[in-house]
Amino acid sequence: MNLTENKERLEMPGSGSMHAGDGYYDVISNCHVNYKAISFENVFGEGESPLLHLLDGHDRVCVVIDSVVNKIFGEKIRSFFERARKELHFVVVDCKESNKNLETTLSIIKKVEEVGVLRREQVVAIGGGVLLDLAGFVSSIYRRGIPYISIPTTLMGVIDASVGIKTGINHLGRRNRLGSYHHAKTVLIDTDFLTTLSRRETANGMGEILKMAVIKDRVLFELLEKHGKQLLDTNFQDYSVARDVIHRSIKGMLEELAPNLWERDLKRVVDFGHSFSPLVEMNALPELLHGEAVALDVIFSSVLSNRRGMLSDQELTRVMKVASSLDLMNSHELFQQADFLEKALADTVLHRNGAQNLPFPAGIGKCRFVNDLHSDEIAAAAGIMKSFDWKTPCKK
Amino acid sequence: MNLTENKERLEMPGSGSMHAGDGYYDVISNCHVNYKAISFENVFGEGESPLLHLLDGHDRVCVVIDSVVNKIFGEKIRSFFERARKELHFVVVDCKESNKNLETTLSIIKKVEEVGVLRREQVVAIGGGVLLDLAGFVSSIYRRGIPYISIPTTLMGVIDASVGIKTGINHLGRRNRLGSYHHAKTVLIDTDFLTTLSRRETANGMGEILKMAVIKDRVLFELLEKHGKQLLDTNFQDYSVARDVIHRSIKGMLEELAPNLWERDLKRVVDFGHSFSPLVEMNALPELLHGEAVALDVIFSSVLSNRRGMLSDQELTRVMKVASSLDLMNSHELFQQADFLEKALADTVLHRNGAQNLPFPAGIGKCRFVNDLHSDEIAAAAGIMKSFDWKTPCKK
Repeated sequence: MNLTENKERLEMPGSGSMHAGDGYYDVISNCHVNYKAISFENVFGEGESPLLHLLDGHDRVCVVIDSVVNKIFGEKIRSFFERARKELHFVVVDCKESNKNLETTLSIIKKVEEVGVLRREQVVAIGGGVLLDLAGFVSSIYRRGIPYISIPTTLMGVIDASVGIKTGINHLGRRNRLGSYHHAKTVLIDTDFLTTLSRRETANGMGEILKMAVIKDRVLFELLEKHGKQLLDTNFQDYSVARDVIHRSIKGMLEELAPNLWERDLKRVVDFGHSFSPLVEMNALPELLHGEAVALDVIFSSVLSNRRGMLSDQELTRVMKVASSLDLMNSHELFQQADFLEKALADTVLHRNGAQNLPFPAGIGKCRFVNDLHSDEIAAAAGIMKSFDWKTPCKK
Repeated sequence: MNLTENKERLEMPGSGSMHAGDGYYDVISNCHVNYKAISFENVFGEGESPLLHLLDGHDRVCVVIDSVVNKIFGEKIRSFFERARKELHFVVVDCKESNKNLETTLSIIKKVEEVGVLRREQVVAIGGGVLLDLAGFVSSIYRRGIPYISIPTTLMGVIDASVGIKTGINHLGRRNRLGSYHHAKTVLIDTDFLTTLSRRETANGMGEILKMAVIKDRVLFELLEKHGKQLLDTNFQDYSVARDVIHRSIKGMLEELAPNLWERDLKRVVDFGHSFSPLVEMNALPELLHGEAVALDVIFSSVLSNRRGMLSDQELTRVMKVASSLDLMNSHELFQQADFLEKALADTVLHRNGAQNLPFPAGIGKCRFVNDLHSDEIAAAAGIMKSFDWKTPCKK
């Protein structure tokens, strides 16, 4: 073995190169990624739609769609593709979080195989976070990856699942234990879909907005304080601040993701709210929605931060009040069990390669990473969580 | 929607950037990939080994190993890690091609989960093509990707499976229908492993070498003509030309792969031998090994090329003679059935996004892509395949 002596250097056309030496080969390459998220009103309406441009060149389309979305918007979507004279294949998926598993993955793959989807044929995924995670995962492993277009239909889908590149399914009782990094070619954000969301579904998405606000964006937090309840009441419709809140959320998310798309750096601000919640969520299925579990983690982590003097009593109270105003719980029995929370953290530490890397708020809108959280602190914070009401505005 | 008006441009630290406009977000990033393949004698011997340097910093190691390799080399490998004081977790996998499926994938994932592998902990995969495909696929989806070190133990593993970045499992009766692009961090090539290969296993690997020779490397082809049988007889040991043949094969492969690692270009020279063979192989399981199916496809494609006047009678005969000298069949009943071969091609066309993109030899060592192959030609070539002996040197 001789690592330094390169007898030949071969430059390739394209972006990769290979150096071959004496019993030694070195491959260097760059994978260029570019994707867009575009807001557009009434994507499936009768006017011009960017979706048709994106699907140009194919006479048919394979749509993977959430069964609830299909019930409400299926007819409209079918008409849209009929007008465009596309042969339409609908794969309807029942998208409870408890269905975000291997079985559902395989059933989608089977249908995609029956359609005979080409290697570069874009699948269109329409649904909330669960559907997008599932369709994204299928797209990433079917034929080692086929492209897809993402059309989020829930607030969670719009501000979280669709704009990132992470896909995943729950496995072996662990959240997103299997998954991949596979970006949608294009994300079409049509907030018309949000009109039909249940109040709880809207609150679910606001859990992720709350996370982003507390850890990164004080202005966003103040918008939530002032307008959060009304945004919830109006399903983000007919309310001028809605657009701004969604924009700040997506922008904040992408600012964090873009330079670290493949998570080479495991210190991630956006992991706030995702340190203790994954195991809680899995063990509370189907009771807790993802955003509800995230909001609980936001509060628990804020309590921990408060105990360290990084977040004032007043700030903690503000966080809890905003959560309550968004119908998000302030406590939960699993966030009151120190043993369970230690186990949850232990699993997260494996996922962060042996480090805690806990994003904690250092004042509202700022993040500091903690790597020395002690069992005593978890026990104390779990105790404090017992004093909070489960489903009503906080006492503190 | 306004695609041109970017109100803000945000440059991120790191390699990615995001532009946010009015209801419009554009993410651009580069994923830098670098991996090495290194030849090293006696990796698990008592002397210095690059493997220990690669595993530095971890007290334990999770080894995914082919059951046959474990039987022969398990003791030696265990001793190696004991001397290095590594806590050792062995995941032993029965690696028939018919086991390259979801069930085996899940059983490996379950064991990796039991070990509690960290996000950046390198799994060590030791085995032939099937083991490396399986372990690579598991590594790519477990926690959205963990790193791994690849140690090929068969000729097929050394010159094909280990040096590329494709992983895959068979699914729904289709070869590699599920998979990913996920490179090993490092490939350690230790040809000592080849000593214990059965004659058939060695011939299997030579199927891929034959492919590379016919489509890309005339010198390699001449080496096979002159020394192929002896390489087979000696298991690539104690024979000066062995090193050269392995080197040319790997170098040729990486020259083709490096600029096109993620197969953005679906015109791939190295797909020669892989146009009709995938479905043949799946339908002939467990009868045919991968390299045997590839060699049959090489001959069938050479017949097609010959009929088009791209390959002379004499050249076709040379190809068939070399195959025979390597114990590779010149014909097979499935390569004599036009209907079946049409179906096989149809599936490949889906995989090549609607194009045939058939790499055909244009003389020995040169490639030309064909995109207008007609049913009549397949029928005629299938008829010619009937005149070839199944398991003995060619008649022609």
